[in-house]
Amino acid sequence: MTYPRYTPLAESLPATVPFVGPETQERQRGAPFAARLGANESIFGPSPHAIEAVKQAASEIWMYGDPENHDLRHALAAYHGLRAENIVVGEGVDGLLGYLVRLMVSSGDPVVTSQGAYPTFNYHVAGFGGTLHTVPYRDDHEDPRALIAKAGEVGAKLVYLANPDNPMGSWHTGSDIVAAMADLPAGCLLVLDEAYVECAPEGTAAPVEADDPRLIRMRTFSKVYGMAGARVGYGLAAPGLISAFNKVRNHFGMNRAAQAGALASLRDIDWLSHVQSEIKAARDRIAVIARDNGLIPLPSATNFVTIDCGQDGAFAKAVLDNLVAAGIFVRMPFAEPQNRCIRVSCGKSGDLDAFAAALPRALLAARKRSQT
Amino acid sequence: MTYPRYTPLAESLPATVPFVGPETQERQRGAPFAARLGANESIFGPSPHAIEAVKQAASEIWMYGDPENHDLRHALAAYHGLRAENIVVGEGVDGLLGYLVRLMVSSGDPVVTSQGAYPTFNYHVAGFGGTLHTVPYRDDHEDPRALIAKAGEVGAKLVYLANPDNPMGSWHTGSDIVAAMADLPAGCLLVLDEAYVECAPEGTAAPVEADDPRLIRMRTFSKVYGMAGARVGYGLAAPGLISAFNKVRNHFGMNRAAQAGALASLRDIDWLSHVQSEIKAARDRIAVIARDNGLIPLPSATNFVTIDCGQDGAFAKAVLDNLVAAGIFVRMPFAEPQNRCIRVSCGKSGDLDAFAAALPRALLAARKRSQT
Repeated sequence: MTYPRYTPLAESLPATVPFVGPETQERQRGAPFAARLGANESIFGPSPHAIEAVKQAASEIWMYGDPENHDLRHALAAYHGLRAENIVVGEGVDGLLGYLVRLMVSSGDPVVTSQGAYPTFNYHVAGFGGTLHTVPYRDDHEDPRALIAKAGEVGAKLVYLANPDNPMGSWHTGSDIVAAMADLPAGCLLVLDEAYVECAPEGTAAPVEADDPRLIRMRTFSKVYGMAGARVGYGLAAPGLISAFNKVRNHFGMNRAAQAGALASLRDIDWLSHVQSEIKAARDRIAVIARDNGLIPLPSATNFVTIDCGQDGAFAKAVLDNLVAAGIFVRMPFAEPQNRCIRVSCGKSGDLDAFAAALPRALLAARKRSQT
Repeated sequence: MTYPRYTPLAESLPATVPFVGPETQERQRGAPFAARLGANESIFGPSPHAIEAVKQAASEIWMYGDPENHDLRHALAAYHGLRAENIVVGEGVDGLLGYLVRLMVSSGDPVVTSQGAYPTFNYHVAGFGGTLHTVPYRDDHEDPRALIAKAGEVGAKLVYLANPDNPMGSWHTGSDIVAAMADLPAGCLLVLDEAYVECAPEGTAAPVEADDPRLIRMRTFSKVYGMAGARVGYGLAAPGLISAFNKVRNHFGMNRAAQAGALASLRDIDWLSHVQSEIKAARDRIAVIARDNGLIPLPSATNFVTIDCGQDGAFAKAVLDNLVAAGIFVRMPFAEPQNRCIRVSCGKSGDLDAFAAALPRALLAARKRSQT
């Protein structure tokens, strides 16, 4: 008998990862990146109060974190005008998506997402044996009506929609999302990933009741709050679904210093405004750099700008590879036709200077290659 | 149709948690604990270098951690004289046990553990639909031969053994473990939880080859390294099993500051020695306090001492409740006959002073109650 005896599902899974980390790429190229603009991290950093809270908590790190995340959940409840019973805190949105899929999806259960949307969600669906159905983007936007129609057609248990979207940066108004939800098939849960919503125009967050049983909204401290490395995400949903996470989650899985940092971060409204304006300025600058190089920046409601390189996926990939070789960490969409683009996270002046300096050469080399 | 449509397995799971956290108990009693001696945390704290590393990483927390845990895995490999391919790092042993069970256990698959051993392992087995078979402790020790015999009898995919044991503090020599492994049934993986092994006498760690396909060993930075709140555990096993974790783990789930802290912690051999001697002194002190009160301290190879209260589970529970009411956070074994004991973590002088002061009254009140 062979060791170990994996489940048939585990045996069938590929050994792929959703993303290759920038550190891996740095090790491969033998040098650090000059600009880290590929993972939609917030280079503007977390609130100084959050940094201070993490430092303060460092000497208390011998204690497990509160498994109920009591203080953070209550602070989030006050912030959102909800009850703590509407909120689950977990190890980033990635962790929470894993728990959610585990609660809902077993072998062959249908799930719907957009072709080329967040791969980590797909990773979890595959990981629990679900069957993924996709619909295409429409004009570089996820298509809520098509997603929901597909969910009805296949009897989906879950339908995933990011608003604003990653990797395209596009968005819908919250009221458009609510309108589309009218057609959600009975028993299908909408997973509304609002990880970037704090970067978006007023009115982008879906105006839904937290007790609405038809959806769960995902939020995070990884993006505008600048704490990606802390791993703190949260879900907003009806109390029944929230408490179901207690059946499967890693109760003592939260880092204690991360809990403290997120709490401090949430209270620093001024820092949030500061980062929001930095993001706007950086988006404008990235758009200018793109246009200066004859490329088309797509409108963005996120902390990144997706740039249409004007040709096919192979060309965009060549541009990306050239940028990476020049020390600029960026990523690109996986699926056609979005993969004609590269995706550039907002950064500080120095980061964008480095990008601006590298882009013309990266384009030139890619154009030379595509002509041969 | 009702919302949401959970899987039949999720629907069947109870909404229980493996442990109630001390913060929850503090909120219930309306006051903080005077001594936190219930969760086998290391009150002696992490290495000052680890604290400094966490503080340094605080301002870099906007970056995701390295999903490969490259530096930590390579440092661990050097430390243990293994290859990085033998090591998986994850969100505490709890997180790693969850992934392991997910890889191996599906509906009805048999798993073996001891009656009253680590409940979080049982939580994961139940959470993936496994069937748990138990064997009793023998003289307050887990019984490797009985566990392995039971594994053969039921065709177990996994058999769990903690050495040293929690909650009893008892241990076997590593060579006894290896001898018992000779009877491991083909295809049964031994999960050897060595979370407390750095507190144990030389020779307690099982002298097995890392490439031995019959077992995985779990280690942690939560106990002697004093970083429970950081959530860093690791598994040592053959490369095939290690790489299987990549099929299901939360690749970006590690806290970046925790990675840095664990790395610094591992390098501070002096601090490890310091904590080991503090633990020995605290165990001796707890034993004296127990004997001064007419109770029997069990021998311990961990950072806690389990104290036989000399009567039944109800009596020990009364002692525990009285201690908790007096501000001393302790825990106790769940299962008979081990539940005649309370479990007291090593602490600093002040913590043990508080325990020493509270214990006589807690015992007196429990004895009065049991006489009525």
